[in-house]
Amino acid sequence: MPDFDVLAIGGGAAGLTIAVGGTLIGFKAALVERHRVGGECTWTGCVPSKAILHTADVAAAARVAAAWSVDGAPPPPQLDFAKVRAHVHGARDQIARTETPEHLRGEGIAVLQGSARLVAPGVVEVDGRSVTARHIVICSGSYPAVPDVPGLAETRTFTNETIFDDLESLPARLAVVGGGPIGCELAQAFARLGSRVTLIQSRDRLLPREEPAVSPILRAALERDGVTVLTDARLMRATPAADGGRGATLSLEGRADVAADAVLIATGRRARVQGFGLEEAGVTLGHDGIQVDDHLQTSVPGVWAIGDCVGPYRFTHVAEMHGRVVLRNILFPWRKQKVDYSAIPWCTFTDPEVGRVGLTEDEARRRYGSSVHSTTLPMSRIDRAVAEGATDGFIKLVARKRKLLGAHVVGPAAGELTQQAALVMSRGLPVSALSMVTVYPAISYGLHQAADRLAGQHFKRNALLQGAAGVIRRLALR
Amino acid sequence: MPDFDVLAIGGGAAGLTIAVGGTLIGFKAALVERHRVGGECTWTGCVPSKAILHTADVAAAARVAAAWSVDGAPPPPQLDFAKVRAHVHGARDQIARTETPEHLRGEGIAVLQGSARLVAPGVVEVDGRSVTARHIVICSGSYPAVPDVPGLAETRTFTNETIFDDLESLPARLAVVGGGPIGCELAQAFARLGSRVTLIQSRDRLLPREEPAVSPILRAALERDGVTVLTDARLMRATPAADGGRGATLSLEGRADVAADAVLIATGRRARVQGFGLEEAGVTLGHDGIQVDDHLQTSVPGVWAIGDCVGPYRFTHVAEMHGRVVLRNILFPWRKQKVDYSAIPWCTFTDPEVGRVGLTEDEARRRYGSSVHSTTLPMSRIDRAVAEGATDGFIKLVARKRKLLGAHVVGPAAGELTQQAALVMSRGLPVSALSMVTVYPAISYGLHQAADRLAGQHFKRNALLQGAAGVIRRLALR
Repeated sequence: MPDFDVLAIGGGAAGLTIAVGGTLIGFKAALVERHRVGGECTWTGCVPSKAILHTADVAAAARVAAAWSVDGAPPPPQLDFAKVRAHVHGARDQIARTETPEHLRGEGIAVLQGSARLVAPGVVEVDGRSVTARHIVICSGSYPAVPDVPGLAETRTFTNETIFDDLESLPARLAVVGGGPIGCELAQAFARLGSRVTLIQSRDRLLPREEPAVSPILRAALERDGVTVLTDARLMRATPAADGGRGATLSLEGRADVAADAVLIATGRRARVQGFGLEEAGVTLGHDGIQVDDHLQTSVPGVWAIGDCVGPYRFTHVAEMHGRVVLRNILFPWRKQKVDYSAIPWCTFTDPEVGRVGLTEDEARRRYGSSVHSTTLPMSRIDRAVAEGATDGFIKLVARKRKLLGAHVVGPAAGELTQQAALVMSRGLPVSALSMVTVYPAISYGLHQAADRLAGQHFKRNALLQGAAGVIRRLALR
Repeated sequence: MPDFDVLAIGGGAAGLTIAVGGTLIGFKAALVERHRVGGECTWTGCVPSKAILHTADVAAAARVAAAWSVDGAPPPPQLDFAKVRAHVHGARDQIARTETPEHLRGEGIAVLQGSARLVAPGVVEVDGRSVTARHIVICSGSYPAVPDVPGLAETRTFTNETIFDDLESLPARLAVVGGGPIGCELAQAFARLGSRVTLIQSRDRLLPREEPAVSPILRAALERDGVTVLTDARLMRATPAADGGRGATLSLEGRADVAADAVLIATGRRARVQGFGLEEAGVTLGHDGIQVDDHLQTSVPGVWAIGDCVGPYRFTHVAEMHGRVVLRNILFPWRKQKVDYSAIPWCTFTDPEVGRVGLTEDEARRRYGSSVHSTTLPMSRIDRAVAEGATDGFIKLVARKRKLLGAHVVGPAAGELTQQAALVMSRGLPVSALSMVTVYPAISYGLHQAADRLAGQHFKRNALLQGAAGVIRRLALR
């Protein structure tokens, strides 16, 4: 008899889903973690970034308040970075409370603290001690990719893994390398907190995975917060500060140098697949992650892999979805479920938020051609956004006939609105489901308006429908 | 031939839906309005209240910023009420732009400015001029109810119809009579802007239509903002200020008098049904509104009534839903649609927001007995709420078997979350639809957590399911 029914290597969102969910459905479950249970999401990712963004939003609101104050009132004071850190660490600690080894053990989970090594199918060594399990799930996560630029390795840069713990005072000048979600979120946060931020993006726009219309809006928002945004900017060399501190001078191709007191690298993430025996045990690796089939099985029977170490969507909620698929596939081996990426929502939590689910219009047209139609409703047409003075952004719906293929929201509550579109897509409802009775004036009302617009477009394009409407009208008004 | 296919009496949300929607589907439509097109929603209701709440949120955030500033920093200055008013009026003006008579005429709608009088089926007089229409839709709205209290008629009180226009400076002391949505929203707004606010509620709790757990949370939030909340408080007499201004002393039964520089009456609304010939034309009135059948027809053929003048739900989005039902019933008289109130969401836009759709737990139990189950997830378990320091509130789901009967959300983005639950209910989806892959860490993730909890409860209560799971587990782990 193996020691456990299921064992997760790695205690982040993926491993926790396996251990907690597995226990709930009656499996004897173990979790191996060498550092902090909770992983990237709780300690160095989603949670601290949202917590610092909140403090930054407060600072930004204080600036609005100053503009609305009686003339001659003093400008808002800068936030105390020690208090900002206290808020960030407090949020982490509160959330981590239900993820401590003690708490998990109380739920019946074996938490093994140490480094795991896959020895053979069904056998893992934890700090040299052998543990057996019917099913082993690799949940090793990912780590920040650092570009191969001369001098960068010698520079004491920050990544999301270190900035929330090791940065003890607000840098006067912060350089952020990378214009993806992490780079944009933290550039805005630090700018609002008072740093002079330069964002260095190698691509021609911010958030290059998103609809092209997103980047100019986000860029303008960051610039209003004081961020210097450099796109098409190639980092050639980093020269560490002579004092051995966190500072550096960054040399860019064909542009002036950027001098910074701190440098944050946010140029993507790589799967963590080295150092725990995967290849030796025969687990096939792909280009950037563990190779799995549609059921999330690796090349070795009884060994599964989920979350960031697999990709392609490195989100907490995808790791959890992976975990549920694997638990289901362990429970129903005779009727395995395939992993389905067709309605995965995500959100970048800048102000304005940028939410997305499904296909961009370009992607949809490449797949379905001219039968794809779309509508874009500017936030300035959504009454609540007007009332909040938050009119930067839009809702874009991409559809084909009655089917919603994608939704793109830039603006307040974009993450929440995206979820509504994800619900429509995940259940295969028609776009018109969004035309339901909608709370006025929630921001969601904009989804209702956008769905109505799509219906109106459909009607206007369709001569047959118009003819029928004419006949019905004449009959009705006889 | 009548002059118009359809004519709306009243240019608020209801009338606009008839006129704009009717024109879209090819009807020759007219709108009669004696005051401002846009009605209560745009001018004195939803829009200005949300706009002033936004300025109040900004003021509250400035206070948080002050607490997070370096020690000894000055407290945030008070907002300039002239700038607050400018924001409120600016938001109204921007939203009203697509509702001006000129704009509507450009869309092909006949806008008749004047007072309408129903003369006979199909005939309306507008300032004495006779106009004919096949279908007449009464959209006369509602007005603030003022309680019959000695001295109140002589006091120059405010209601939502006057406060956004006529109040020119922030009152030092504001008394708000009424603890429903309007009273709570405006009490909080003015308290955050710097008034000393006393909220006088005759019932034993705030928002008495909502789940009982809502009131203590909202009360604590208002009290933190400095509002003095008096429940079970009976207003006995108002004594107007001797200076002829806006002030008054309010005498309460068995309590100390409340002296105020301004008094806002927010004790509900009454249907506006007098003065335009309804009874003379034979339209039957109910207790508080025009009597209509399930298809929204009045007792007079060809005369319909929708929106606040009908009730029972006096919301912009219900008025619009009514309008769509009537247009459909005019277009398809041989297949009329009944109005359906089973999934009407609404929201009170205080901080925390209070959103709701469907039944409370008590209502559900009265209807379905012990087969009803529920779960309540505190906001403190929703990671984004923790990161935002916005942990007051909860998500409560009420269900029966797999069916969602009600959702109650108190907290950030409650209005948006409620809409997601409304989508599930309006489409008859199972509760588990909310367990879809959900953006982490959107607040919506809490809906996912709550739905998972309901599923877990269901499993724990069901011995048969557990037995089956045991068998499956043993088979799977052979």
